[in-house]
Formats: sequence, C-alpha cells, structure tokens
Amino acid sequence: MTQNQKDRRMLGAMLRIPFQAIVARINEGLRTRGFTDLRPAHFVIFQHIHPEGSHLTELAEQAQITKQSAGALVDHLMACGYIERLPDPNDGRAKIVRLTERGRELEKAAREILSQVEQEWAEQLGDERLTQLKQTLKDLIALIEEGAKS
Amino acid sequence: MTQNQKDRRMLGAMLRIPFQAIVARINEGLRTRGFTDLRPAHFVIFQHIHPEGSHLTELAEQAQITKQSAGALVDHLMACGYIERLPDPNDGRAKIVRLTERGRELEKAAREILSQVEQEWAEQLGDERLTQLKQTLKDLIALIEEGAKS
Repeated sequence: MTQNQKDRRMLGAMLRIPFQAIVARINEGLRTRGFTDLRPAHFVIFQHIHPEGSHLTELAEQAQITKQSAGALVDHLMACGYIERLPDPNDGRAKIVRLTERGRELEKAAREILSQVEQEWAEQLGDERLTQLKQTLKDLIALIEEGAKS
Repeated sequence: MTQNQKDRRMLGAMLRIPFQAIVARINEGLRTRGFTDLRPAHFVIFQHIHPEGSHLTELAEQAQITKQSAGALVDHLMACGYIERLPDPNDGRAKIVRLTERGRELEKAAREILSQVEQEWAEQLGDERLTQLKQTLKDLIALIEEGAKS
C-alpha cells in the first residue's frame, strides 16, 4: 500500500484495521493456548452469544451476516463443543444457543489475550491517549445506539 | 444488552460497533442509490481491491477469511459486473481482480456515504474530538503496522 493510499483511508478503515489486529492477536493467542479449531469468522458469532442464550437470527443480525452463514458457523462451534443448542425457555418451539463450559474457557482466554493487547497499546500510545480513545468510542457508540432507537 | 454488559465491553467491541455502524449505513445508502445486489460481506472484499488489481489470496488475507470464502464473494462481485478478472501483468500464470467502471461508481458512492457519516459524527461528537479520534487511530495503525514488520 502506498503512502497516498494510506492517507486516503477513511474512518471505516481506521476502525477496521485495529479491530482486525485484535482479531488476529486473539486468533494467534487462542492457537497457542490449544484452541486450534476456530477461525476469525467464528469469533464474530461467538462473542455475540448472550450468557442466557441467543437465537440464531439475533446472532446473524449482530454479526451482519446471513442466517445461513451464521448457521454454518454455529454448527461448527457446536461440533467443537463450545456451544450447545437448547429449547428457548420463553418459547418452546424456538431454539437458543448457549456457551458450554469449554466455551466459557474459550471466552476467558480471549478476554485475557485482549487485555494483553490493550496493555501493550496503552504502553505504546500512552495511558492517557488510550483512555481518551476508549471514552470517545464509548460516546460514539452511545450516539449510534441512540440513533438506532429513534 | 444490559448496562453491565455494555460496561464490560472491551476495546475489540468498541472498535467493532462503530465500524459495523458504518457498514450498515453504507449498505443502506448503496441500496437507496440502486446498488441492490451486495451484502456487507462483499464490501470487505471490495474495499481491499487495489487500483492496479489484487490477487485472491491477498484479498482473503486482508479480509481475514478463507480463500474459499473470498472466492465466492469475488465470483458474486464479478457476476454483478463490479470487478473483472485479468491475467497478472507480472506473472502470466496468475490472475488479478480489478474494479470495472461500475465498480468505480460503487466505490465513489460508498465514499460519499461514508463522508456523510463522518460529517454527522463530527457534528455530534464535535470536530475536535473526531479529529483526535482519527489521529489516535492513525497512530495506533502505524504502531500495528510497525509491529507486523518486526
């Protein structure tokens, strides 16, 4: 990529690149810790699963993928033993997916890796700038969520 | 999502949510402008295509998806006339994909929509905070790219 292309990067890419760097670090870190059966596409589904269980349609919406793609990712996570499918306690005809014990271990490992990345970035950017970044992103998310409701 | 879950959000989610909001706005805006044959998954491929052409393996790496998934997305973009496949001028046996005229129109439309989103966020957050956000992200990306090289 040329310097000129880098300068033309817009906000989308500026958010995506550090996000993808986090995903790559989690991917790498999970492999080192023995979670070798996942691809980044699975994290996107995984991280959206609610502690009390989520519906497939919710997961697809939150990950911005089709229900069909989400279904394939969920099937893989189930086959690997990270999630389980149960009847929805609020609607017997519907199904929810929920983390298993192994899934919670995976989540814990991912959080630890992410904490490590945050700590490195805090050291490199300075605590103050990282805190400021997080506060601005938090305020931006509040505006986005406000906008989505209205 | 409860307030507690919101507070537990880590940096990954804090970058992902505004990024996904941008993707959703581009998706919506493109549909309004008559580009109705794309899903967000296609943007991820599309935005990585180099003006002089890209290899499928590069696109898959940059989008953090398998070569097989990237191939399916590229096929759809080709079928819709946004990109074309050509022999690589530097290696006759390899192929590259490049934007068509229609693809460049799509890119222009996406940039316009993104500019609009940035302008709204600048109004809501304040110009100064948005500029600061972009500068911090830019510095963070430089650190990430520096790290990737070493």
